[in-house]
Amino acid sequence: MYKVKVFVTLRESVLDPQGNAVKHSLHSMNYNEVSDVRIGKYLELSIEKSERPVEEVVKEMCERLLANVVIEDYRFEIEEAVAQ
Amino acid sequence: MYKVKVFVTLRESVLDPQGNAVKHSLHSMNYNEVSDVRIGKYLELSIEKSERPVEEVVKEMCERLLANVVIEDYRFEIEEAVAQ
Repeated sequence: MYKVKVFVTLRESVLDPQGNAVKHSLHSMNYNEVSDVRIGKYLELSIEKSERPVEEVVKEMCERLLANVVIEDYRFEIEEAVAQ
Repeated sequence: MYKVKVFVTLRESVLDPQGNAVKHSLHSMNYNEVSDVRIGKYLELSIEKSERPVEEVVKEMCERLLANVVIEDYRFEIEEAVAQ
């Protein structure tokens, strides 16, 4: 069993209106030290072992479903969970 | 200047319908090894130095705006960015 953390972020060149809205909210609350906010997705997957290497499976899932690779980047961390 | 990464996740006891929808999509694509999916938010903040310690500022922003602490947990990582 693996615990996989996937981070999906907008590419640098893509505007982030949601992040801008949060930045403006923070400024209106007097957190003027915040100069930029970017918002992405964070996914935690539990994956059973299978014949295929888990890296390969996760990469394929990211490309096919979890990230829109036209406008988003992704990265992931895999850790093997101890059986309980 | 600090780069701060904030992870906001649903508390364990809270149902995650969005995560379930993604899990079912993955199963329909034959990724049957995926046993659980939880979806959260991932924020990257750029924060200028100020009088207050950055940990204190980030914690307060999380409690007041970025996370809904009734149903969400948050954690964050702070790294000092090298001036460019």
